[in-house]
Amino acid sequence: MSVQTPGFGAFEVFQIMRDGKPRTRAELTVQTGLSRSTIASRIDTLSELGLVKPVSYASSTGGRPSSQIAFNASAGIVAAADLGATHATIAITDLAGKRIAETHTRLEIADAPEEVLELLGENIAALLQQIDRDSSDLAAIGVGLPGPVEHDTGRPSKPPLMPAWDGFDVPAEIRKKFPVPVLVDNDVNIMALGERSINWPDTDHMIFVKVATGIGAGIISGGQLQRGADGTAGDIGHIPIPRGAFVPCTCGNTGCLEALASGPAIAAGLRKNGADVHTVADIIALARSGDLAATQAVRQAGRDIGEVLNMCVSIINPSVITIGGSMAEAGEHLIAGIREAVYGRSTPIATQHLTIQQSRSGPQAGVIGASILAIEYALSAERLESLHNHRTA
Amino acid sequence: MSVQTPGFGAFEVFQIMRDGKPRTRAELTVQTGLSRSTIASRIDTLSELGLVKPVSYASSTGGRPSSQIAFNASAGIVAAADLGATHATIAITDLAGKRIAETHTRLEIADAPEEVLELLGENIAALLQQIDRDSSDLAAIGVGLPGPVEHDTGRPSKPPLMPAWDGFDVPAEIRKKFPVPVLVDNDVNIMALGERSINWPDTDHMIFVKVATGIGAGIISGGQLQRGADGTAGDIGHIPIPRGAFVPCTCGNTGCLEALASGPAIAAGLRKNGADVHTVADIIALARSGDLAATQAVRQAGRDIGEVLNMCVSIINPSVITIGGSMAEAGEHLIAGIREAVYGRSTPIATQHLTIQQSRSGPQAGVIGASILAIEYALSAERLESLHNHRTA
Repeated sequence: MSVQTPGFGAFEVFQIMRDGKPRTRAELTVQTGLSRSTIASRIDTLSELGLVKPVSYASSTGGRPSSQIAFNASAGIVAAADLGATHATIAITDLAGKRIAETHTRLEIADAPEEVLELLGENIAALLQQIDRDSSDLAAIGVGLPGPVEHDTGRPSKPPLMPAWDGFDVPAEIRKKFPVPVLVDNDVNIMALGERSINWPDTDHMIFVKVATGIGAGIISGGQLQRGADGTAGDIGHIPIPRGAFVPCTCGNTGCLEALASGPAIAAGLRKNGADVHTVADIIALARSGDLAATQAVRQAGRDIGEVLNMCVSIINPSVITIGGSMAEAGEHLIAGIREAVYGRSTPIATQHLTIQQSRSGPQAGVIGASILAIEYALSAERLESLHNHRTA
Repeated sequence: MSVQTPGFGAFEVFQIMRDGKPRTRAELTVQTGLSRSTIASRIDTLSELGLVKPVSYASSTGGRPSSQIAFNASAGIVAAADLGATHATIAITDLAGKRIAETHTRLEIADAPEEVLELLGENIAALLQQIDRDSSDLAAIGVGLPGPVEHDTGRPSKPPLMPAWDGFDVPAEIRKKFPVPVLVDNDVNIMALGERSINWPDTDHMIFVKVATGIGAGIISGGQLQRGADGTAGDIGHIPIPRGAFVPCTCGNTGCLEALASGPAIAAGLRKNGADVHTVADIIALARSGDLAATQAVRQAGRDIGEVLNMCVSIINPSVITIGGSMAEAGEHLIAGIREAVYGRSTPIATQHLTIQQSRSGPQAGVIGASILAIEYALSAERLESLHNHRTA
């Protein structure tokens, strides 16, 4: 059970306002059970912080018209970045997650973190200039990285694709240029947040699976993104698959899901059969051309992923599983293999209401999730309390 | 993010008081940031409901002594029952979960639900009489059953050990005798709640595994018991184990963990080797006597369970795994096999802070968890609001 943060009593009222609906003070009094004077003082606090604003005059049956107030999503902006292995999407959004400006850039995540983050900083600065805003307008920055991240510190932990980043203090580096809170998470977690926000806002138990160069999952249970005790929850790429018993994985073990069903693993298998296949795009093109070996390889990868998701279903019991990442573009062959393995094995009760489908939010899930990460922090009780204390000190 | 329930503003103050620590009104004013008059009115509301009471006079440096108030855990009582396949533990606790009276009884859970629940009702009535209380004093009843339960309705869902209970309205049957809220969950979930409350109150990510006639897990992620979309989260007994490929399971599949590593599966394996072993107690006695085959069988069961827990570690990333249920009494051989499989395979980052150990709460975890189930409902914002409205209507 959660307890309202002492010291920022206005948080409760603000949480109600965050749906964006205009309300009168009288409506808030009824909805919260707080007194008129308490509501008035809390609205004052939120107005001083710019978080709510008057929006219109409600129609009234005589007497003084009642002023309505609503969440002011443009009270601040956040920067959001989804950094992949070779490309990045960077956006500025308002406090409701609406994108105001966006850009795409190529990068090499394996480069030194200082170089990559300088490129990120230049892009954020360019976006700010484009919309005529200043870095002092930023409430927070959210960043997704393609590897394990210790969320509390923002430091990557032995990330295979970006070894130079191991333990690197990403927030500190970004704060050299932008002195605001910086939240960092792995790309799969931010994609799960984005996918849920765009397509499944009412789903409390879902798994987002990214299938690309690696394989990982973002897990939402009980309505919350679950990172686990060390931030490694959803790290399904290294769960062993029986048929892969002797296939070596980059992690040092054998038979990992990622060693069998990731883009590079499928491409390597097809090359053994003489095909000229190197990238995920090559695999998808070949499968779409109707090539039997490619189609079969993608379907088998789906079955392997499905075998692991079958375990996830037993353990977590989600109502939705969505498949994203570049390999998801292979479409029905991959999903068909996943469905075959999950529905063929799971208990009837766990799958009776289970939906498995391709992510519909596409590449924007990541950057939207990164903005949610930044917004939730910027608008948390702790953060608002500190802003309020700073202002009244 | 959670929003305080509108209409019962005293909930916030009550949540702070639930730790049992006496506080003055002035201390609560500071801690909540609420005004003195608001605190006074909320304390009045809580006092009227009997939930807080004056406890003493704080020493004061002159002037009027400040009256302290504290959570009144004896404002109500709940009944809690942990029903197993052949036995039950039934208790009455106060609102802090302290057991006031307890009894044990034999039963056959495979019997008709009306019969079993009549026996339960008789035992609750006897306990109430013993402590000179009436059924009208009960705030709620919490019940754990050895099978899948739809938590929202309290109806078992195709429970293998108790087929006559499928879809049976357990709360309605119990309410015929005790017209109070009845909360029902499966035994593993209540054991997880009890184990956490007794031994790991500060752990937000833990897995409790019951190994007995069946194998199941109760999962706590992000500080909350996770039941999943259909209440089947933690149903790990039917995850397939490669070495069991051709071993049939009662569920209709082959190779399930339960078909290999549960008490009956181990006993069947030992009987094939000529041993006279039928129950979990037989297995434990034989293993403790130093019998090599029994020791090896228990250790192999541990490895099989560990193989599945290794997947749970990848998916959930807990900091604690505790092993309970009657087979846990086999002690180190079982745990050693589990540790061997989990630590031998999981990624270093997911296991660096992972503790795996035998449950220390023993048989009382279940009944304490059932009382927590009842108390959390009885003291929820919704329930207190409804009591308050009823009283002031």
